[in-house]
Amino acid sequence: MNHATGIEISRDDERPVRQGPAETFTGQVSLKPLFDPNDVRNTSAAQVSFTPCARTAWHTHPAGQTLFVTSGTGWVQEWGGTKQRINPGDVIWTPPGVKHWHGATDTTAMTHIAIQAFVDGRPVDWMEHVTDDQYLDQRTQ
Amino acid sequence: MNHATGIEISRDDERPVRQGPAETFTGQVSLKPLFDPNDVRNTSAAQVSFTPCARTAWHTHPAGQTLFVTSGTGWVQEWGGTKQRINPGDVIWTPPGVKHWHGATDTTAMTHIAIQAFVDGRPVDWMEHVTDDQYLDQRTQ
Repeated sequence: MNHATGIEISRDDERPVRQGPAETFTGQVSLKPLFDPNDVRNTSAAQVSFTPCARTAWHTHPAGQTLFVTSGTGWVQEWGGTKQRINPGDVIWTPPGVKHWHGATDTTAMTHIAIQAFVDGRPVDWMEHVTDDQYLDQRTQ
Repeated sequence: MNHATGIEISRDDERPVRQGPAETFTGQVSLKPLFDPNDVRNTSAAQVSFTPCARTAWHTHPAGQTLFVTSGTGWVQEWGGTKQRINPGDVIWTPPGVKHWHGATDTTAMTHIAIQAFVDGRPVDWMEHVTDDQYLDQRTQ
């Protein structure tokens, strides 16, 4: 961080990539932290890369979440809905409390930036994993 | 937008690139809108591309601003401070009310994502342009 002025710069190499924990992700997922809340900003963001077949667990966000796809092709699905394909440049808004998952398709990697606000210090509520049957469900409606 | 579920997807081609207006930018600047505030989210974001020598006017943000450099190399400067080089992966926090500008260097293009919250319906307060003398000032401190 640069404290020479009011402007603070967090350099890329100050924020190492982490692996997505097995408790909340399936498959190989890389998490690059971008920023956390501060005394003014109540949001955090990370760039998340999913290898083919990798995905989040089912979860909700108490203040919703915005995704911006930066590369590849992925899927997002709301509980009770059908998978929707997401491509570079697409922006996905998931309202507060909507149970959903997001990740790569079974044949393509996908990277998105995820931005979420905090409620009571919490940006996400994690649930059960997305089973292979759920992930590969081909139903459409 | 997709209203079939609670999840809303804004496709890339629904948000055409705009040119940065001459009133608030110098040089060739492209603005790709990402998202606007909604009934839950009080922030907007855009991906902004500056050609060499292009930059914003001096400005402040009532709720601050977060920048994430996605390609190229640029400069950011606070009023009274010196230019600081910003590179891909760097995240820049400008606190509320801090007068500053950001843009490309004089020899390289730069693209960043800009995220800002709104106060009284306003994410930014624009000021005078950054003169060539200010932009090319080589002083260091």
